[in-house]
Formats: sequence, C-alpha cells, structure tokens
Amino acid sequence: MSTTSIPETCRAAVLTEHGAPLEIRELPVPAELEPGALLVRIEAATVCGSDLHLWDGSLAGSQALTLPVIPGHEMVGSVVRIGPGAERDTFGAPLHPGDRICFTHASCNQCEHCRLDNQPTLCTNRQYYMFTSCAKPPYLVGGFAEYCYVFPNSGRVKVPEEVRTEWASAASCALRTVVHSFDRIGRLNPWDTVVIQGAGPLGLFATALADHLGAGRIVTIGAPDDRLKIATSFGATDVVSLSAAPEPQDRIDAVRDLLGGRGADVVFEFSGARTAFTEGLGMIREGGRYMVTGQIDGPGKEVPVRPGFITRQQLTIMGTWSGHIAEYYKALQFVRNTRDRYDFGALVPHRYTLDNATDALARMRAQEDIKPVLVPHATPAGVSA
Amino acid sequence: MSTTSIPETCRAAVLTEHGAPLEIRELPVPAELEPGALLVRIEAATVCGSDLHLWDGSLAGSQALTLPVIPGHEMVGSVVRIGPGAERDTFGAPLHPGDRICFTHASCNQCEHCRLDNQPTLCTNRQYYMFTSCAKPPYLVGGFAEYCYVFPNSGRVKVPEEVRTEWASAASCALRTVVHSFDRIGRLNPWDTVVIQGAGPLGLFATALADHLGAGRIVTIGAPDDRLKIATSFGATDVVSLSAAPEPQDRIDAVRDLLGGRGADVVFEFSGARTAFTEGLGMIREGGRYMVTGQIDGPGKEVPVRPGFITRQQLTIMGTWSGHIAEYYKALQFVRNTRDRYDFGALVPHRYTLDNATDALARMRAQEDIKPVLVPHATPAGVSA
Amino acid sequence: MSTTSIPETCRAAVLTEHGAPLEIRELPVPAELEPGALLVRIEAATVCGSDLHLWDGSLAGSQALTLPVIPGHEMVGSVVRIGPGAERDTFGAPLHPGDRICFTHASCNQCEHCRLDNQPTLCTNRQYYMFTSCAKPPYLVGGFAEYCYVFPNSGRVKVPEEVRTEWASAASCALRTVVHSFDRIGRLNPWDTVVIQGAGPLGLFATALADHLGAGRIVTIGAPDDRLKIATSFGATDVVSLSAAPEPQDRIDAVRDLLGGRGADVVFEFSGARTAFTEGLGMIREGGRYMVTGQIDGPGKEVPVRPGFITRQQLTIMGTWSGHIAEYYKALQFVRNTRDRYDFGALVPHRYTLDNATDALARMRAQEDIKPVLVPHATPAGVSA
Amino acid sequence: MSTTSIPETCRAAVLTEHGAPLEIRELPVPAELEPGALLVRIEAATVCGSDLHLWDGSLAGSQALTLPVIPGHEMVGSVVRIGPGAERDTFGAPLHPGDRICFTHASCNQCEHCRLDNQPTLCTNRQYYMFTSCAKPPYLVGGFAEYCYVFPNSGRVKVPEEVRTEWASAASCALRTVVHSFDRIGRLNPWDTVVIQGAGPLGLFATALADHLGAGRIVTIGAPDDRLKIATSFGATDVVSLSAAPEPQDRIDAVRDLLGGRGADVVFEFSGARTAFTEGLGMIREGGRYMVTGQIDGPGKEVPVRPGFITRQQLTIMGTWSGHIAEYYKALQFVRNTRDRYDFGALVPHRYTLDNATDALARMRAQEDIKPVLVPHATPAGVSA
Repeated sequence: MSTTSIPETCRAAVLTEHGAPLEIRELPVPAELEPGALLVRIEAATVCGSDLHLWDGSLAGSQALTLPVIPGHEMVGSVVRIGPGAERDTFGAPLHPGDRICFTHASCNQCEHCRLDNQPTLCTNRQYYMFTSCAKPPYLVGGFAEYCYVFPNSGRVKVPEEVRTEWASAASCALRTVVHSFDRIGRLNPWDTVVIQGAGPLGLFATALADHLGAGRIVTIGAPDDRLKIATSFGATDVVSLSAAPEPQDRIDAVRDLLGGRGADVVFEFSGARTAFTEGLGMIREGGRYMVTGQIDGPGKEVPVRPGFITRQQLTIMGTWSGHIAEYYKALQFVRNTRDRYDFGALVPHRYTLDNATDALARMRAQEDIKPVLVPHATPAGVSA
Repeated sequence: MSTTSIPETCRAAVLTEHGAPLEIRELPVPAELEPGALLVRIEAATVCGSDLHLWDGSLAGSQALTLPVIPGHEMVGSVVRIGPGAERDTFGAPLHPGDRICFTHASCNQCEHCRLDNQPTLCTNRQYYMFTSCAKPPYLVGGFAEYCYVFPNSGRVKVPEEVRTEWASAASCALRTVVHSFDRIGRLNPWDTVVIQGAGPLGLFATALADHLGAGRIVTIGAPDDRLKIATSFGATDVVSLSAAPEPQDRIDAVRDLLGGRGADVVFEFSGARTAFTEGLGMIREGGRYMVTGQIDGPGKEVPVRPGFITRQQLTIMGTWSGHIAEYYKALQFVRNTRDRYDFGALVPHRYTLDNATDALARMRAQEDIKPVLVPHATPAGVSA
Repeated sequence: MSTTSIPETCRAAVLTEHGAPLEIRELPVPAELEPGALLVRIEAATVCGSDLHLWDGSLAGSQALTLPVIPGHEMVGSVVRIGPGAERDTFGAPLHPGDRICFTHASCNQCEHCRLDNQPTLCTNRQYYMFTSCAKPPYLVGGFAEYCYVFPNSGRVKVPEEVRTEWASAASCALRTVVHSFDRIGRLNPWDTVVIQGAGPLGLFATALADHLGAGRIVTIGAPDDRLKIATSFGATDVVSLSAAPEPQDRIDAVRDLLGGRGADVVFEFSGARTAFTEGLGMIREGGRYMVTGQIDGPGKEVPVRPGFITRQQLTIMGTWSGHIAEYYKALQFVRNTRDRYDFGALVPHRYTLDNATDALARMRAQEDIKPVLVPHATPAGVSA
Repeated sequence: MSTTSIPETCRAAVLTEHGAPLEIRELPVPAELEPGALLVRIEAATVCGSDLHLWDGSLAGSQALTLPVIPGHEMVGSVVRIGPGAERDTFGAPLHPGDRICFTHASCNQCEHCRLDNQPTLCTNRQYYMFTSCAKPPYLVGGFAEYCYVFPNSGRVKVPEEVRTEWASAASCALRTVVHSFDRIGRLNPWDTVVIQGAGPLGLFATALADHLGAGRIVTIGAPDDRLKIATSFGATDVVSLSAAPEPQDRIDAVRDLLGGRGADVVFEFSGARTAFTEGLGMIREGGRYMVTGQIDGPGKEVPVRPGFITRQQLTIMGTWSGHIAEYYKALQFVRNTRDRYDFGALVPHRYTLDNATDALARMRAQEDIKPVLVPHATPAGVSA
C-alpha cells in the first residue's frame, strides 16, 4: 500500500509522572513492521477507568511501570500499514487501508493459559498497551496518540460499517469485558433476576446486554441519577440510587424489597467500589451466581467475608479479567444489532483533542463526563460530531 | 411383607440438651407408612462432624431446634416395611425386605430450587433427619436409633452387595458431599494439580476420588499425621502436615514449593477450619478453581478477603451444600469399584453401641476416632467386625 | 372475574375428514376450569406446516387420530377465565383478564423425560392441541376456534406489549422450535459459518436468529425467490435459490463455493424436504454440527446415509422436537428486542376468518401465502390490519 | 545420553503390496532428531483393526498410499534418544532413557481444528504413523519395527509403572478412542442404560469403562461367545450373542426386551459392521444419544436412515475419530486404576515376533486372536510372558 501520507513522527500524549499533566511528545512512527503487525491511525480513543488510575498511580502495578508510557487501551484505528501475513483480521476478513479495527492486548498463544486453559487474558507473556514504555521501539503502544502499532499477537477485528467509531472504541474495553463476564457466568435464564452494581460504562452496557438477553428483571444500582436514567432507557426494570440509599445495607434492603424478599439469581459487580463485594453477597439468592469484574484494588484492601455463607448458600463466585478477541467480535456485533434500541451515544457525549487529554482525565474523575472521547486527528473516520 | 419381627417401640439415643450425654429413650415404631415412605432397621450409623456440632450446639441453626431430636443422618438401613408405591428405589431397582439402602434428606420436587435450578439440596421445604423433633410422629427421624422412618420424598438407593455397611454409611454423607463438590467444580483435566485442605473423612475421600479421576498431582493438607498416611495410601502425591507447617503462610509456601512456585489448578476446602478459606486462596493459581465445602460457621465468623484478587486472578469460587440422590448413587459406585484400591475401612475403625453414642461423639471430638460407627443391633447386616 | 361476556357456545373450524373442507361447528365453552387451567379468547391463530399435513393426512400419526379435531396449535389467546391457582404465568407474572398469552402443549412434569432428562417435549403423557378430540370436554382444544381451553400443565407466558399478536402467534410454534434448535446445538461462535436449509417461516426466523447471535456468515437455501429476499433482509449474507440450483449436488457445490471449498460449521435443516438430510450432510465441515428439525416424514421414508462419514468427520447430528415454555419466552423476547431490525410482518401478510380457514390451508399449500393468520373475532387484540 | 547401544539400522515388517505377506527390511535408524522428536525402542506393538484393513487394502484411503509403509500405530516405546526440547512428556513429567511412553499421531497445533475447534484429531496437517512412507527419512514411522521415530508434534505420555506394556499398547489406540467417545458423548448418569455394539477390543474396553463410570445397566452385543464372557467379567449386566440373535431385528428385540420395552439411554457403536448403524438407531430411546465410532467404510457404503426419526425422537448422534493426548493419559490412568478389577490381559493373550507379523494379521482376521501383540525384541520391557 502507498505510505506517502504517513509521517515519520507523530504526536502522543505521554505520562511522564503520576498525577502530572500528560505531556505532548513527538515520537517515531515505525516504518518497518514485524510479521503479523499493523500500523493504524487512531480515529478515537475513549478513556477507561484504568487510564484514570494509571494516571494517578492508584492502579495496581502502575507504580512499578517504567515511564514514560502512552495511556489509552480502548481505541479504534484505521489500517495504514500492513505487516507480512497480516492481510486478514482474526476472523478471516480481508484488511485494507482505511478499514477500522479494534484490537486486543497481545497474548502469546503458547503458555498454559493460552493453550490448556483457554484463558488467554491471563497469558503469562501478555503485552499490554499503555503499560509498555514509549521510549523505545515500536514507541506507539497506547491509544492517546495519532498512530498506534498493533502487536503481531494482538487479535484484531474489523468494525462493522454501521457502528460509530466512538461506540466501537467504548466496546473495545468496557463492553468486551462485560461480554466476557456474561460468557463466563453462564446461561441467563429468561426468569432470572439480575442485579448490576454500578452505573458507569460497564454497568450500563451490562444493563443493555442483560435486557437484550431477556433477563426477567434487571436492577441497576449507581450514581449519579442521570446515569440511572440511561440505565432505565437501557432496560433496567428498577434502579437503586446511591443518593436515595447511601449505605450498603440500604441498598441490600432495596434490592430484596424489589425482588419480593428473595435475592437475585445473578449479581454482576461493575462498580469498582470498595464495599461492593460484601454488598453484592448480601443481594444474592441461595444457589445464585456472582460475577466480580470491577474490583481492581491491590494488596491491603481486604473486606470481611464469611466462608460459611459460600458453602451453605452453595454460591458460585467468579472474577473476570479483561477480554479476548472473540469478546471484541461479539461486543461489536451487539452494538451493531441493537444500536436502534440503545442510545450508545449517551455513554460517549464529549470530544477532546490530544492537547486536552489531561482535561478529559480530570473531568472523568470528577464524574463530569462518563467516558471522554479523544480524537487525535482533525478528520476522524466514523466519529459523530 | 411379614412384620412379625418389628417391635412396636424401639430404642434411640436422643439429644435433649446441647452438650449433655445423649439419653436412651423408647420411641414408637410407626406402623402405618405414608405413600412413598419406608421403614428401615438401622444397620450402622456413622458419625459426621455435623452430629458433633449439633451435640455441642455450635452448628449453625442448632440452638433454634426444638429438642429432643435423634442425631445421625449418615446411615444404612435395611428395609423392613414398604409404603404404598415405594416398591422400587429411585433408580428403578426393586426393593425387598432386607435390602440395604442409603437415603437422602427429603427435597420437595416442587420449589424453584428443585424444579428450575436443579439444586435440590437447597430445597425450600427440605426435611432433614436429625433436625426434626422425635417427640411426634413419625418419631424415628435420625440415625442413632434401632429403626428409622424414610420420608416419602427421600431419594433412596440400594447398597451394592460388595460394599460393607459401614463404608456405605460413610458414603451417605461424607462421600456424597465430596462427589457433589467434584460434580460442581467441573471436569478435572489429567494435568491438573489438586490441593485438598483437610485430612478428615471428606478430605481423605476427596484424595481418593481425585486420584481415581487421574489428577496430575494431589497435595493433601491436614493432621494428625496418621491421617496423612491414609492420604498417601489414597493417592496423595504429597502431604503437608499441620505439625510441620503450623501457620497458614507456611502451608501456602509448602504448596507453592511443591508446585514449582505456581498455585494449584483446583483447591478443595474440606477442613472446616476458620483460616482455611484465605489460606486456600493463597494456594490457587491464576484462573484456578476453588471449591469451599467444609465451612459451616454461622454469622459473625468473617475473614478478610481482597475482592480485587478474585477479579485479577479470574477465579472461580464455589460452595457445595450436602448432596442429592445421584451423588449417593455415584458415591456407592465409587466405593464398589475401588474398594480393592483404597482401604475404606481405615476411615471407620471403631464400633459403638447406642449406649456408647456419647462416647463416640467425645472420642471423635478428641480426634481419637476418625469416624465412629454406631451399630444399634447385635446382628448387623454387612458390618465388618 | 366477570364472565358475563363469555358465551356458552362458540364457533370452531373442525376437521371431520382428512382433505375435506373444515366444517364450522358450534361447541360448548367450558364453564368450569380444572385447577391450573385457563380459558382464553383466540385473538389470532397462525397456520403451521403441521396443520397442513394434519389436514391432508400426511402428518405422521394423523391417520390414527379420532376425528373430529380442531386444527391449530400456534396461537395467541387473551385470558377470559382463570382456574384456581392459575393467577400467574409460568414465570411468575400475574395474569389478568385481557392479558395476551402464548401457551405450550401440556407436559406432565412427572415422567422421566420431564424429570430426569429435562426434555419435556418428549413427555410420555403429553397432551397436544389439535390432536385431541373436540367431541368431548373440554372441547376447545385447538387454535381454529373462538375460544381455547388451556390445559393445567400447559406452560403459559404473557406476550410483551410491544409484540403484535400475529408475530407472537408465529413465535409460539415456528420460532420457539427454532429457538429450541439453537439452544440444543450449543454455542455459536462469531466465526462460525451457518447454513440454513429452508426459507419458510422456520428458516427465515432461523436466519434472523443466527444474524442476531452474530454468526460469521449465513447462507439460506430455499424458494420461492421472494422468500429469499426476506432472508437477505433478515441477515443472510448469501442465499441459494432452488430455481438456480435445482439439484441437491448443485446446492452443495454452491455452498462450498461460497465458503471457500470448506463446509459449514453448523447446518440447520428447516426445510422438511425429503432430500434435505443427505444434502445437508454434504454441506457440513469436518467436526461440524447438524441440527435436523424440519423432518416429519413417517415410516417408509428412508434416505441413504454412509455411517463411516459420521465417524470419520467426527460429526454431531441432532434432532429437535417442538419446544417448551422457556423457548416460548425466549422467542417472544427475541421478537420484542429485534422488531425494529427484522420485519416480522413479512412472514404473516394475510388475514382469514374462521369461515375461510380451508382457504388459508389451500393457499399455504400452494405457496401463495407463507403463514396465514386466522382471526376468529371481529375485534382482535393486537393484530395488525 | 549414551547411544552406544543403538544400532545404525534395524528391522521392520514392511507392507509392500496389499494382501501380500509383510516383508522384513533393514532400515536406517535416524541419528539426528528434530527439535521435539524422540527415538524409541518398540517394546510391543498391538494389532488394531485398521492395521488389518491397511494390510488387505480395504481401509478407506489405503489404496492411495505410497508403499512401502510400516504398519502399526498402537504401540509402546522406551525412550532411547531425546531431541532438543523433548526432555519432558506432554504433561510435564521428565523423560529419561528407558522410560516407556505412548504417543499420538502428530497434530499441528496451528490449524483451525487444532486451534479454534479443539478437535485436534481432525487436524488438517496430521502426520499418521503407518501411513507415512518408510522409504525416506525418518524411515521408522510405524509400530511393526524395532525402533520408531516420534514426530515433534506427537503428544507423548509416560506409561505408569503398574501398567503392563501390552495393556498400554492396547490403550494407545483402542482404549483412547473409547475414552474419546465417552468424553464426547457427555456425562453418563448413574441411571443410564448403555448398549455397546461390538465385543472386540473397543467394545470390551467400553464395557469396562461404562461399568467403571457406574452406568445403570450395560448390554454388550457381539461374537464369538468367549468374548461375551469377557464382557460379562468386565461389567456387562447382559450380553446379546450374534449366534443366538443373528438378525439385526432379533438384536433390537432382545435389547428392548431386556430394557422393559424401552430403548437405551446411550448406544455406542464399536462393531464396525455394515448393519450396525441402523440397528443401533432401533435400540435407542427417545431423546437418547448414539456414538458412532466403529464405522470406517468409505464411499459407496450407504445404509437407509429415516431423517424424520432423528427429528421426532430428538436424538443426538455423534461420531468420534481417533484420540489425542489427553485421552491417552486418561486411558492409561484408567488401566492403572482398575487393573485389579478388569483382566486386561484377556484382550492380549498371544505374542508374535516381527517375523510372524503376517501370521498375527491372519489370525486376527480369522478371529483366532482378539488383539495380537508383536514383540520385536528378545528382552522387552514390561511385557507379560
């Protein structure tokens, strides 16, 4: 393909010190690609909670990183350069310059998690975007930049035409993690009652997905109230507001009242709040299932749990970490199929340039923006105004 | 059938006050059976940890019981009277007087746990032996007695000829709970490493079952050391002794050393110890599975757990409560099929009469007997000397 | 509830002789309901292929029926009379007069298929609508009538408000059978290629469902060509027309050409054609799955199959018979959730009165109508003009 | 390792013309091993039905082979030379000279069957022993020889000490295929009735495995009668003799009589007979499962099947092809665990030298030997006299 339009360097918003404003740097654009690699132009990079916690240094492991890094791991790129053997996406669709793709962190396909377990997000040799130093080749390994290098082992999938770029970007971490959680928890029966803890992007996507899968009743818990309005429009049959029920026990009581005294068949934790885990256990019925996805606190952050409760109630409690390429695919299909039913634009209302990246982080932290959208180029492909 | 040999009353060892010696009482033998019910002569009743905690009042819920009750829920009876429609066992085998059977607590087959969930041990209307007052009909609803009434909704299965009565009795609570735990945790791969917390009857049965299923490596943790010798003879590739590793962290280190620094694929908790849960979490690998079966502590017995660990490690944690008729069947088949390989007699070395029932409890509490066998009649069927 | 508006008798289109015009008869409306039963007013009854074959006597078993019977088993009724204990639908939603419901053939909940197998459509004691004589109480046991008696053991589910009555009617046999087939065949991976044999109502619903579930590629095979246009609008990525490919081998070649020489991951048979089975086997890949749902030919209708092919290709071949209440629920949820994406009205374009029921059958047989809609009352609830 | 004792050439019994006596040839022993490869000394090679049909040319595909080849793919070798990176078996056990191993045909780990499907026996690039020409390096690629080259991609597993060499050899094709079939067909419930078609090595291993897994009733069908005696000793509750029931319908009637008029829950086909498939369909119950493993006939060998039967009975019919490394492991564990219960020696009663290999084939064809054991060396490791 012609590469005349690809510059030799490009701009990136770089984290050089935790908590400090991101710094705009000019970084080399790799001209040579390894077999299997791609170069993409970033059309949009949405901000994930992990980006926020990477920034302020509270994310588990973030203090140990070698800075500088480029934040951002939830993004859509359009193909500009194709490495040897990378002519198709993971599902066999041919890739051409200009095609929009989502892509995964890179799993090795050779360790026991990849091979025997079929749990590739636990890959021993995983290469993460945003965690890899941008001071050495291939430099462009994060979303807050004009271009990004796609690792050879990164799964990649074309974005369906009907899916807006900023929806696809949000799908590429938030929604695929939700899809992974639903896949792991097993079949939802149509009579199942579902509680969703959290009304951020993951909780809202999960509300829509539970609705779409025909759950019998969906209770979404969160704040602020305008997000609960989105939850209702996404299919929550009931919402519990943190302002109306400020204490965990209030919320447990509210859920049990709504469900006729009984606990929920399935509880999903997408809130990230410290108290959410024990609170969720209080909401589950005997024999129920609990998916814990939003908890990212590191060592030292224990909460009290009674093991006898797990035995006597015959519970199933699972965690979900990240997502892999099949979940990306399903996430994008879900958005394509249901875009007329759910207003996904409500999750990504505001646009930012690279220069405003620090603002985006700050406004997200202040809950003034639910999921900021960084648009590095003046003429992005497929992004709504 | 002829009933000439069935007395009108019989003896039972009755709990009238927590912690006090059991009292021998003469109770009516029901002459009339409801449809589906059976009357059996107790050939042997083995003592379960729950009996012990019922006795001393520490079992969750035991303080709320209406005494007197007959302890014992792990037993083998031979059929002496057959109610209308009870001519076959649950699997269709015809029942005749003298046939030895195991039987379950009674689940209703009509509540949502029985019907929709397929989790009948959680049945809302479950009738438990040993928890039902013996002061009213049908009186004989516990194992520490000469006869026992089998509830219409109690699943029942014939004991295979090759299986000694005291093995079958031990299978009817301890082993069927182990089988249920293995069923719930899912397929064991032949390369899986398994840790078993606890070397009591459940832990030892689990060691044998894991060995039988071909687990790659089996580490059994417990005390006293003579039980670990049984574990080794039952297939444990390694044992960790509480005397050699008295602290939880010692045991975590020992397991990780044995497994090359890596955690176990599957951990089973059968110890009942307070610290076991967090200890087990320390032994599990990323993406691993943890089955928590031995924890019976009631409210107020919390331990510290970090929810972020469940998310990041993508764990599956499950509880198992009791067992149902299919598990009884499988437990008995397992014993029949492997009796030449595993010396199940080692789990049930000592015999007691009803008059000695309190002794049996006391010796079990003192760890002087691993699983006492009560033999109410002078000429029991199928019990080893 | 008030029953003032319910007549003592009502009209039904009755089959008295195979192949002869249906006869309009006045039949008693049952005033007394057994516990668990309902009486409903038929708002719409759509015609299923089985009705057609019942009429002409070619349906397996139809020659052995005791006539007269009321054809029709795919219908929506609105509740007019509620038997004791029938105040809620199977999923717990309260039922009030006027509520529209779909309902299943009655399975007994007690035989081994209901209890042990979890295959209630195979129930040994199943009571079928349209197969039960209308010459004796409760008389109204088929859809081609003004009212219908709902058996106590018939599962029943409320029709969501957003779902048109004629869509729900079509969902209550055609679509629930498709849903059942998809449930049985197991998870569809997003990279799976799917072939759907047949472009009648089942094949078209299946096309939409496969699309909705994100199948990688969907090839629908059938005739006439206007139905293939619906298939395309329902998500078929490719269609194979019987007019363009009149011979089985033509169609096998066409499918393999479309799939790059390779067979399909999953083939669904919804055509009912005699040659379809061996044709479908020719379209499947090694290790693929084949769901055979449309075959209703009775004894004497064998086709040649090579068993060595099943072994060497390591195939999975399954049949699906009818559907049960969970599939009804899911079918209705699917229609509700996707009604903006798929034009379900295209499957049910024409309306008929009871007097025209024979016309409806004849036009369906002539492929002049894809799925006729009988509307017994002048003022049906929820039916499109 | 020292290689002083490994000759530069060795003897092999070679197929040069279908149906002709095997020819003893001296072939090079490869001195250099690719990474991942092993060289083993053949301790025993048992004869599989496929070897027989390879010999006479009736095996599908055998006419297309480039001769000469070395027959034999069911064997145990002891390690004599270890290629780079081949220091451990597939499950991580260290390999030392003298260790006995079983090993699989080689699957590539990279095609869609290996990667996406998890069906590695369908591998597009599979390298088969006995199908690969012995006229070019690495020459020794079949079991009827003194040494064998183990392909880099061949899974390999150590034979447990307690397992006789000839049992392990029989396990390495016959039993692992049976294990694979049981794995694919899904869970056996303890109340399930099982029919096993065939009393050759596969049918007898399957009888033992069904018994071991606790099937409720096991009917084994076959001939000659001395094999049915083994079936009974392996746990068949009933046997049906081909001499007593010579026609398929006789056998169907016999099975239905035994099962109270009802069909079997699960039928396994291990007979290889032409009529077995339709006969098995006649023995299955509604909703039952049928595993077809023994059918190896090629094109032109069709039998009549009624597709409507598959739909109406809601059947599951599956094929199984070969086995992979996990099945080898499980097969060996099964033999180790149950060797005191089942007399596996009854399946492998006679020994042959390489010079007698043609005799072995002829006697197997004449049903004078159930599974001949070739012993190439005078001092085999672990072979019973």
